[in-house]
Amino acid sequence: MIEKIDHIGIAVSNIQDAAKFYTEALGLKVSEIETVEEQKVKTVGILLGDTRIELLEPLGAEGPIAKFIEKRGEGIQHIALKVDDIKAQLDDLKQKGIRLIDEEPKMGAGGAKIAFIHPKSTNGILIELCER
Amino acid sequence: MIEKIDHIGIAVSNIQDAAKFYTEALGLKVSEIETVEEQKVKTVGILLGDTRIELLEPLGAEGPIAKFIEKRGEGIQHIALKVDDIKAQLDDLKQKGIRLIDEEPKMGAGGAKIAFIHPKSTNGILIELCER
Repeated sequence: MIEKIDHIGIAVSNIQDAAKFYTEALGLKVSEIETVEEQKVKTVGILLGDTRIELLEPLGAEGPIAKFIEKRGEGIQHIALKVDDIKAQLDDLKQKGIRLIDEEPKMGAGGAKIAFIHPKSTNGILIELCER
Repeated sequence: MIEKIDHIGIAVSNIQDAAKFYTEALGLKVSEIETVEEQKVKTVGILLGDTRIELLEPLGAEGPIAKFIEKRGEGIQHIALKVDDIKAQLDDLKQKGIRLIDEEPKMGAGGAKIAFIHPKSTNGILIELCER
């Protein structure tokens, strides 16, 4: 079951620079920086109601966020939906013929189980499923 | 004051086609279609926790959504932040040197007052402010 939007992932070249808009202009609070080696990013969260904006800075020239910025520039990279049971959700989507990037959950920020749905099945949007 | 993420605006070529992923694959509910002449779009909302995904289909070849799809293809077009007082928020941002697309609020879907912040001031993201 889909519970809510867990976060919106935004690719940025530099977290400190990007965070200034949210803190100084909008008066929002930004979390401590977390490094997620599996995704080759460092990230901060900005809590907004029951969801979050996640700023994602590539750790180097490799990884999905580095490639996204190289190809399209900074911008919104994905939407993450919180699910109660990621394994069951993936099985259900597979059965419905939805194309998945990850057929099995992998490890995301904050110890979440995550998996990406292929943009071919979602009108061009990268959607992450996430179980906490 | 920023209250929450009001919605995420997604540009699509055809609302009915795009909605199928959310209804059939994810089991979510989609609202009735609303036409917003000022923005030259028709739109449906998908409620997710305290926020919404808004699918936006251009009414013709003109308007911001038509131009977005022509230039970049379907995808996430903007994030809308709900504010308690859009006029005060715009004045505050202007004073802080933030570049605005709309210096005065205009009319959005559902009778909301809306205004867009320029992507030059937000690391490439189109952010809408919205008062309901």
